[in-house]
Amino acid sequence: MSVHMSPEEFRRHGKQVVDWIADYLACVESYPVMSQVKPGEIRRALPSGPPERGEPFEAVLSDLGRVLMPGVTHWQHPSFFGYFPSNASGPAILGDLLSSGLGVQGMSWVTSPACTELETLVVDWLAELLALPARFRTDAAGGGVIQDSASSASLVALLAALHRAGDGRVADEGVTRRYTLYVSSQTHSSLEKAARIAGLGSVGVRAVRVDPRTLAMDPGHLRTLLAEDAAAGAVPTMVCATVGTTSTTAVDPVAAIGEVCREHGVWLHVDAAYAGVAALCPELRWLNDGVAEYADSYVTNPHKWLLTNFDCTVLWTADRAPLLGALSILPEYLKNTATSVGSVIDYRDWQVPLGRRFRALKLWTVLRWYGAEGLRAHIRKGVELAQELASWIAAEPGFEVREPHPLGLVCFRPVWQELDAADADRATMRLMELLNTSGSMYLTHTRVDGRVELRMAIGGVATERRHVERAWEQIRWEHAALSRTLPGDPEH
Amino acid sequence: MSVHMSPEEFRRHGKQVVDWIADYLACVESYPVMSQVKPGEIRRALPSGPPERGEPFEAVLSDLGRVLMPGVTHWQHPSFFGYFPSNASGPAILGDLLSSGLGVQGMSWVTSPACTELETLVVDWLAELLALPARFRTDAAGGGVIQDSASSASLVALLAALHRAGDGRVADEGVTRRYTLYVSSQTHSSLEKAARIAGLGSVGVRAVRVDPRTLAMDPGHLRTLLAEDAAAGAVPTMVCATVGTTSTTAVDPVAAIGEVCREHGVWLHVDAAYAGVAALCPELRWLNDGVAEYADSYVTNPHKWLLTNFDCTVLWTADRAPLLGALSILPEYLKNTATSVGSVIDYRDWQVPLGRRFRALKLWTVLRWYGAEGLRAHIRKGVELAQELASWIAAEPGFEVREPHPLGLVCFRPVWQELDAADADRATMRLMELLNTSGSMYLTHTRVDGRVELRMAIGGVATERRHVERAWEQIRWEHAALSRTLPGDPEH
Repeated sequence: MSVHMSPEEFRRHGKQVVDWIADYLACVESYPVMSQVKPGEIRRALPSGPPERGEPFEAVLSDLGRVLMPGVTHWQHPSFFGYFPSNASGPAILGDLLSSGLGVQGMSWVTSPACTELETLVVDWLAELLALPARFRTDAAGGGVIQDSASSASLVALLAALHRAGDGRVADEGVTRRYTLYVSSQTHSSLEKAARIAGLGSVGVRAVRVDPRTLAMDPGHLRTLLAEDAAAGAVPTMVCATVGTTSTTAVDPVAAIGEVCREHGVWLHVDAAYAGVAALCPELRWLNDGVAEYADSYVTNPHKWLLTNFDCTVLWTADRAPLLGALSILPEYLKNTATSVGSVIDYRDWQVPLGRRFRALKLWTVLRWYGAEGLRAHIRKGVELAQELASWIAAEPGFEVREPHPLGLVCFRPVWQELDAADADRATMRLMELLNTSGSMYLTHTRVDGRVELRMAIGGVATERRHVERAWEQIRWEHAALSRTLPGDPEH
Repeated sequence: MSVHMSPEEFRRHGKQVVDWIADYLACVESYPVMSQVKPGEIRRALPSGPPERGEPFEAVLSDLGRVLMPGVTHWQHPSFFGYFPSNASGPAILGDLLSSGLGVQGMSWVTSPACTELETLVVDWLAELLALPARFRTDAAGGGVIQDSASSASLVALLAALHRAGDGRVADEGVTRRYTLYVSSQTHSSLEKAARIAGLGSVGVRAVRVDPRTLAMDPGHLRTLLAEDAAAGAVPTMVCATVGTTSTTAVDPVAAIGEVCREHGVWLHVDAAYAGVAALCPELRWLNDGVAEYADSYVTNPHKWLLTNFDCTVLWTADRAPLLGALSILPEYLKNTATSVGSVIDYRDWQVPLGRRFRALKLWTVLRWYGAEGLRAHIRKGVELAQELASWIAAEPGFEVREPHPLGLVCFRPVWQELDAADADRATMRLMELLNTSGSMYLTHTRVDGRVELRMAIGGVATERRHVERAWEQIRWEHAALSRTLPGDPEH
């Protein structure tokens, strides 16, 4: 007897799992948003060793519900407002399922031509939807590729930039000079991580000043740093401009930064991980001002706000040659006619790993199910709800809202009149903890200029106006309750 | 009206997709194994631009069958013998589906405790099944983590090794010295890629000689190189020993290599991407001789032979401190109590990307569905069929088989008596092309000592004895037909 799950068994259990997920999605609101377990609790509830004999699939599903679910923080809960949205829509889940079912490995064109060609197609489609420049297409010198995360994509961009800055010698000779990367205090930490991984070290990461109000990078200071570093013998390699920072969705002035990059011949990478997909809407396309003229590479994450479940990052470059120069290695066991003739794309040379899933399927199912129209409606709804929330907070005595907040994220804090800065920050963190442990909403925090702010990111598939209203109601209520226990309160 | 797929629509379309996959798995044998399309054919058959309006899910499924399927190379076909198996079993597909459906993002413990704790549990389970040392457990100083690929895992190992070799200064200061990595001509190309990415450059990769018969690394030559390099001022950083090379499944002498590493204080990384999982079977556990005593890190891919669909690589280390030292960065917006207290694992610091899927689910569903017993049966079947095939080839005049072939891969070639080496290689490649374009089987090639060999890797879920018999039949038949057209043949 075969040990494998037969196609008929798969059919049966597959439908059980689909029912399980449909039920989950239908009642996700009934769970506490944030898992309430203590460290070690889940692990201790499971057998310490692996089973010697196979078990029925139903046993797994039962343990999933009974043991694992209390340890799940529900990112698809309509009242999940933490980090950024990590949308898992129906069509995306099914696209991913098709990818798993086909089980192809798309490292080279020849290992499944459809995997490569659909990927090129959907990243071109997305570039068109976002009005990204023609230079980013494969039929020009550029091209797009799906990666697992913006972290990996930014690392790949840095490697391409190093290849160019080092006149093609870094892949062979290594990092033998002082190559430098330019970010701001608001740039995502993955850029420093990339610099570490690529051998530049944190010392190679130069921090450009930001405008204290908008938190956008100061192009004048960038110019100064680049000139200083070049004069000191460093090789300025890449500038990372961010469109929609993780902390507050600040937008760096890409055009002005690009002008400086051009003066110095430095690679301009644009990290639009969260905000980039908003360019689907013409009224938000200003976000990408300067990208068409100046960007050497650009990254955005359909797996955040664009309804395509993790992992699906798209990286585009205007020049694929340095990227291939940095990453291409062809051992004998991967040689094949199509690759030798050079008539095809082998995406393994556009990324860190060798193997690849058929991830284009889920982006394809999303783009087709929603159409441009449906995608725009989703983005607009998130922006509208966030703007409403911001107006409520701004109108509320005792709270202040951070400007600007052009997208789905609102940063704000209670004023805590009677407390000094450190105590006020502690009180804000305490408020967040009370809200999160209540289980009825989830939000995260950041620090700007040393001071704590709360972040409320709107844009989940299931999030409706009533969830935002209820969250704000609860914030005000918990804030009032907490205020009464603080030293400055007359009743304390 | 909502633009989203409702839970009830998901239930309906999900079952359509499950039926589609079940039908596919039931009739995968009826497809040509290798896609027969020409470059550009698939892309041209699809609309050049994205849809403005959403489309019914049925339209997507219909295009999948009609347009995409001809461009798919069927890795799950029972006569797919190329590269290594990339098993997609029923329980793994369903585990992955559950992960997509839950849509959690496991970058930190707090973002979904079950995601982290189940991962720690299943990698511990797998370590137990493979008889890997207790040092690799999180309750010691080590630990295991799921990565997307062995390429990424080996890069992570190299970064940890650099952290140690550079006395903890590389993350800050960058690659300021000549750090060196030791491989053989048989080591996977991802190690050179890792050296390039990490800033060592190809020049930092030192090639250790191999035994010409077994293709195993020569520990004596490694000792010489290490001594020479250290004397020349380099910092020997990591040695990669391979258990089951990609080209021929050669097995490096890990214990002897480990002894040399210990003498020089160099990090020993063991790449057992394909073969490692075979240690499930006590009779194959010799593969890992020396690992328990000497390995600093070890990688194997359940997504190859262990029935867990791509991507699922497991990396273990005996010392997680240098790994965290190399990769850990904690920006404000990711801070949380559990992390600060240090009572939990945050797997984002064990990998290149920040975000992570709930990949532990699919390894969990596989380990539970099959049990150790079922997994062993699958491995043993692959090995047995390969040994039978090797015996048939060895008994066939006009063919030669490469020794040793301890696992599921058999390398062999026709002798082509009348041809010189170059013509013989061309004839072998021509034979492979004929077999692959026939659509009824798929195999790949390698080159050993400059000469072409065919690789036939057995271990697919659906592969039975009859598929191997039929393939061998076809190889002999095509070989005979091709021989008759060659210059040395009397009838030519």
